[in-house]
Amino acid sequence: MIQRLCVIGVGLIGGSLARSLREENAVASIVGCGRGAGNLERALDLGVIDEYTFDPASAVKGADVVVVACTLGATPEIFAAIAPALTDATVVTDVGSAKQRVIDAARIAFGSNFPHFVPGHPIAGTERSGVEASFAGLFRDHRVILTPEPDSDPAAVARIGAMWRRVGASVVELAAGRHDEVLAATSHLPHMLAYALVDCLAKMDESRQIFDFAAGGFRDSSRIASSDPAMWRDIALDNRDALLTMLDRYSKTYEELRCALEVSDGDALYALFSRAKSVRDETFAGGGK
Amino acid sequence: MIQRLCVIGVGLIGGSLARSLREENAVASIVGCGRGAGNLERALDLGVIDEYTFDPASAVKGADVVVVACTLGATPEIFAAIAPALTDATVVTDVGSAKQRVIDAARIAFGSNFPHFVPGHPIAGTERSGVEASFAGLFRDHRVILTPEPDSDPAAVARIGAMWRRVGASVVELAAGRHDEVLAATSHLPHMLAYALVDCLAKMDESRQIFDFAAGGFRDSSRIASSDPAMWRDIALDNRDALLTMLDRYSKTYEELRCALEVSDGDALYALFSRAKSVRDETFAGGGK
Repeated sequence: MIQRLCVIGVGLIGGSLARSLREENAVASIVGCGRGAGNLERALDLGVIDEYTFDPASAVKGADVVVVACTLGATPEIFAAIAPALTDATVVTDVGSAKQRVIDAARIAFGSNFPHFVPGHPIAGTERSGVEASFAGLFRDHRVILTPEPDSDPAAVARIGAMWRRVGASVVELAAGRHDEVLAATSHLPHMLAYALVDCLAKMDESRQIFDFAAGGFRDSSRIASSDPAMWRDIALDNRDALLTMLDRYSKTYEELRCALEVSDGDALYALFSRAKSVRDETFAGGGK
Repeated sequence: MIQRLCVIGVGLIGGSLARSLREENAVASIVGCGRGAGNLERALDLGVIDEYTFDPASAVKGADVVVVACTLGATPEIFAAIAPALTDATVVTDVGSAKQRVIDAARIAFGSNFPHFVPGHPIAGTERSGVEASFAGLFRDHRVILTPEPDSDPAAVARIGAMWRRVGASVVELAAGRHDEVLAATSHLPHMLAYALVDCLAKMDESRQIFDFAAGGFRDSSRIASSDPAMWRDIALDNRDALLTMLDRYSKTYEELRCALEVSDGDALYALFSRAKSVRDETFAGGGK
């Protein structure tokens, strides 16, 4: 049971975690913190939080668990703002999509209190954002990756793991570097491809007509291009190194495909498409298409 | 009313058209033609067709409408096989995803009978294939593009247009070259991106673990990589020129994104992501996400 949960950034993720814990009767009271009065008022109206403040330092006072769920770009300054107000009784976690930079920022801000910080990342979300988009159940049957460091407090890690399991998530631990590499591959790269796809088409002559003929395939492949641009700017920058590596790796496969097409090598195209289809079918076997 | 419909290639598209016309009581009898006895027997069992033959020339005899719905790769030889058996009373159409090559093949095969051929392309489908995947209603509220040539018979074009409208599609006419350009952008390029994405990830070390962490964004962006590899080899080869142009156009936007990331230019990333988001949101405003 969490006595006092502090959620900094009451958006899709922070709001959904608050709703989910409440639904599970796993939290006594919830204080929200953010910069937008409108969103926090709405969170209050929706019963997602019990009270709010704009001041991060006062928000964390008396909280046993603090979830930093603001944008990655704002995370270092939030860490710096809350650090002086933290005690040994408080466990801090985050939900950022890139972990090494967050860990670096946490070490600087928290100093000797760093062991009570548990870097985390729920693999869940939609392309929508804000507390209006949040819902209990978002994390059910989803993974949450924790990337504790050698000096992380095992009790703190266990506490955050239990919190996520309570809302239906399965919790796994990875080294931060591996997390960043895996996410660059499965999430950050696909987002870059989708953004570039839509932008590329939008630059064409009479692009209105082109989009008119877009069918289901395009709708699906471009869905994540509707994601929040500021959030994805921050993710891309915060996971820059791993993402650049993935972008270059992708370029190689893309160039291989392009060359096969240029020389009309049907066998090479067929081989590449077949490999992809069988891996993809296997990955989502039994799951939704 | 179609008295005798001949469907060559009773797969997802051919089978769905047969089912849809039957549901609308718009066809008296349907003969199927193909190479696989199993699929044709299944089509017969499902009531999709009334009879079948393996011989294209006999299949078209007495048919008032012939729909060539085999793979693009097999289309030229089918045209050649049916050409001697066609009369002025028969209108032939196809469903291929690349139109200029199909038109070229039809001119060669049909000669002076070319005006009774109506090049067509229903913008509908799923990543599944075969008659099992076919269903009445596939074309409802979807577009069908016809790409008639200056010497196409207006009555034949009108007849095929009416057939598609009867099953709920909206019919538009485009020049073949424009069709190929538009489809390269909205359909063929996204398929190449999805195939390359999955293949790129599959080549990584411990790729099993990587796919383990794939979430909804990846599932959606890779869905079309589950499409039939032979079909997409044929489409890529048949629309090679327009697709190569699109691949190069895409490379430019991709490189722009990559450069912005390399120099950590958050403003440029934000601008690109924002443009894409607003175009994408506008394209599917009111529609499904």
